[in-house]
Amino acid sequence: MARLVMKFGGTSVANVERIRHVASLVRREVEAGHEVAVVVSAMAGTTNQLVAFCTDAARVHDAREYDTVVAAGEQITSGLLALVLQAEGIPARSWQGWQIPMRTDDTHAAARIVDVDTRILLDRFKEGQVAVVSGFQGLGPDNRITTLGRGGSDTSAVALAAALHADRCDIYTDVEGVFTADPRIVAKARKLDKIAYEEMLELASAGAKVLHTRSVGLAMLHRVRVQVVSSFADRAGTLVCDEDEIVEQGVVSGIAYSRDEAKITLVRVPDRPGVAASIFGPLADKGVNVDMIVQNVADDGKTTDLTFTVGRADLDRAVSLLEGARAQIGFARLSTDDGVAKVSVIGVGMRSHAGVAKTMFQTLAEKGINIKVITTSEIKVSVLIDAQYTELALRALHSAYGLDAA
Amino acid sequence: MARLVMKFGGTSVANVERIRHVASLVRREVEAGHEVAVVVSAMAGTTNQLVAFCTDAARVHDAREYDTVVAAGEQITSGLLALVLQAEGIPARSWQGWQIPMRTDDTHAAARIVDVDTRILLDRFKEGQVAVVSGFQGLGPDNRITTLGRGGSDTSAVALAAALHADRCDIYTDVEGVFTADPRIVAKARKLDKIAYEEMLELASAGAKVLHTRSVGLAMLHRVRVQVVSSFADRAGTLVCDEDEIVEQGVVSGIAYSRDEAKITLVRVPDRPGVAASIFGPLADKGVNVDMIVQNVADDGKTTDLTFTVGRADLDRAVSLLEGARAQIGFARLSTDDGVAKVSVIGVGMRSHAGVAKTMFQTLAEKGINIKVITTSEIKVSVLIDAQYTELALRALHSAYGLDAA
Repeated sequence: MARLVMKFGGTSVANVERIRHVASLVRREVEAGHEVAVVVSAMAGTTNQLVAFCTDAARVHDAREYDTVVAAGEQITSGLLALVLQAEGIPARSWQGWQIPMRTDDTHAAARIVDVDTRILLDRFKEGQVAVVSGFQGLGPDNRITTLGRGGSDTSAVALAAALHADRCDIYTDVEGVFTADPRIVAKARKLDKIAYEEMLELASAGAKVLHTRSVGLAMLHRVRVQVVSSFADRAGTLVCDEDEIVEQGVVSGIAYSRDEAKITLVRVPDRPGVAASIFGPLADKGVNVDMIVQNVADDGKTTDLTFTVGRADLDRAVSLLEGARAQIGFARLSTDDGVAKVSVIGVGMRSHAGVAKTMFQTLAEKGINIKVITTSEIKVSVLIDAQYTELALRALHSAYGLDAA
Repeated sequence: MARLVMKFGGTSVANVERIRHVASLVRREVEAGHEVAVVVSAMAGTTNQLVAFCTDAARVHDAREYDTVVAAGEQITSGLLALVLQAEGIPARSWQGWQIPMRTDDTHAAARIVDVDTRILLDRFKEGQVAVVSGFQGLGPDNRITTLGRGGSDTSAVALAAALHADRCDIYTDVEGVFTADPRIVAKARKLDKIAYEEMLELASAGAKVLHTRSVGLAMLHRVRVQVVSSFADRAGTLVCDEDEIVEQGVVSGIAYSRDEAKITLVRVPDRPGVAASIFGPLADKGVNVDMIVQNVADDGKTTDLTFTVGRADLDRAVSLLEGARAQIGFARLSTDDGVAKVSVIGVGMRSHAGVAKTMFQTLAEKGINIKVITTSEIKVSVLIDAQYTELALRALHSAYGLDAA
């Protein structure tokens, strides 16, 4: 007997028919003798509809009321799945964030889980009851409903799995698992049987949209074994787990890309201490995340050119913040480019293998692809390139690192 | 300064545009210096959609999960109205049944309110904050969401007004108030300025659909002054209040009708003690409500014919229950008629005026309308007639009692 958390996203519970299919997947685990907690999202489209209502109601809206409105989506799904399970003879009960309670901080609309009370659920497990838990929502210290931000249901599932000391947290989705690269672009991409937490974290933040970055970080912290698996294909997915669990580890595990970034270059910034703070301070204060940063000393030796990337959605805001701080920073000119893509190769094997970056640069050079910015971490090399070469770069790198399916 | 409860039904909050209109009505009361609690229903159509989901999920469904699903409708509206009020600069906060809490018994899907904790709301009134309360829902002793049954939002509003010792409970609706008769049928019907609780209760149970019977009973019990008023027409509605508040009281206040009944006649029932119990016991046990009952002694002196009405929706069930108990009851034949209508004249003035019933019978006789069943109470006379004469009977009676508008 194992204890499992199963998480289903909006597409998997889009209508009652699909909820019945979810129930059949739950039934399989129950019949195998497992204790099961299911975490559900809102039915596909519901959250968008509720968010649209809020935006219509008030352009700038109170996050506490926003949370009350949007959390209704998960409430509906959890009740419906409990009904379907009961109709199939499987004892089940729905639980909202406030009932468990799943306690969070008071950052409404982007709350962090601080404590999950598992007493009720463990009691019900003893009675053979399946717990159907509304994802995405919790109870704030003000006794009001909080939500975790978009994609928060993955985080709910992992936090619940950690609190319940579950043997595994299965994230059911519409893909079959984690691939060496996006299979829609790289036809020869392979599904990975296992991937290390660190790699998954880098993949998620590098643009792979399989799992929410936050949920991977939480899984890594609490060593929750997470399986990404398809709701529709009846086969094992990809297990996100400790590096030690992975026997056959390649140097590079996967290649990710993101077209959600834009490049900003500040030309001729005075090369003096504190200048970086004068640039990135105001951006950070306003919540603009900066990703890649490179700095070149200019010919004159007194100024420097500074290039960095921000989320594309933040570009206009970043530019106006920088223009506003132009007097303090003292740059000569600002240029932007939103026709860029970030391509990253990732693998824990890099720690012990040299030459990974060299292979990357060589491969891109052979294809005539110019590199605009480079950043590296212990297990990742990322480059910024012209967006039109994204597909070409991904396929060439996939072959170069020997990832192509036989 | 007064303390008001304002209640808005599904049509009044059908979309964000209408919710903005509701906010304008709330604003008017706030600007007049009143303390305001608003009770809202789900957006029109939402509850039906959620109920349909439940029925699809499980034909026979667990009322606890049903309550969880359908209560989401009111949760959405309360959050949205709070957002709209805030956007207009009116401090407001939404409250769900579990947050107040509005405690109910554990009869899920048809719960009764047992206690309304007003502490939070009274504290917020002191801060000048409007309370937006989800109608229809409460918190059961099992710490789960309960709902009060269809139309329960009126009951929520009255219960809240009673607990808050509100000066008035305004029920906003799509009609302008309570009329002497249904104005869609009787063109000369007049809006009443005031109506006594007892009359409103009889009107509601006699078929007038302005207020939920249950909410009127509750208002009468706690002496809550209830105003039925239009969300769209900008004028006073009808005040449901104590008889003593009504200065100019006619003998008959209103005429109601219902086409929702069906007649059952049991022919040649043995005329012995206990026979009525053998008939109405099984019906009551299965939740079939019996309304009008008449009994005639047959010619033979040993048997009796028994006629009564049930809700039309319950007719088939009632017949099969009675056929099932035929041996015990011992009737010769059962006949049914669902082409009937109940017409009632209502007025507290009847207590001190004779001849009300006589006028009714005479008027109907003059129009050639046959009376099938008669029942009377202290302030009501009801007759069952052929449904095709409903309009004719209503108009004739409206004139006969001097209710026609000048």
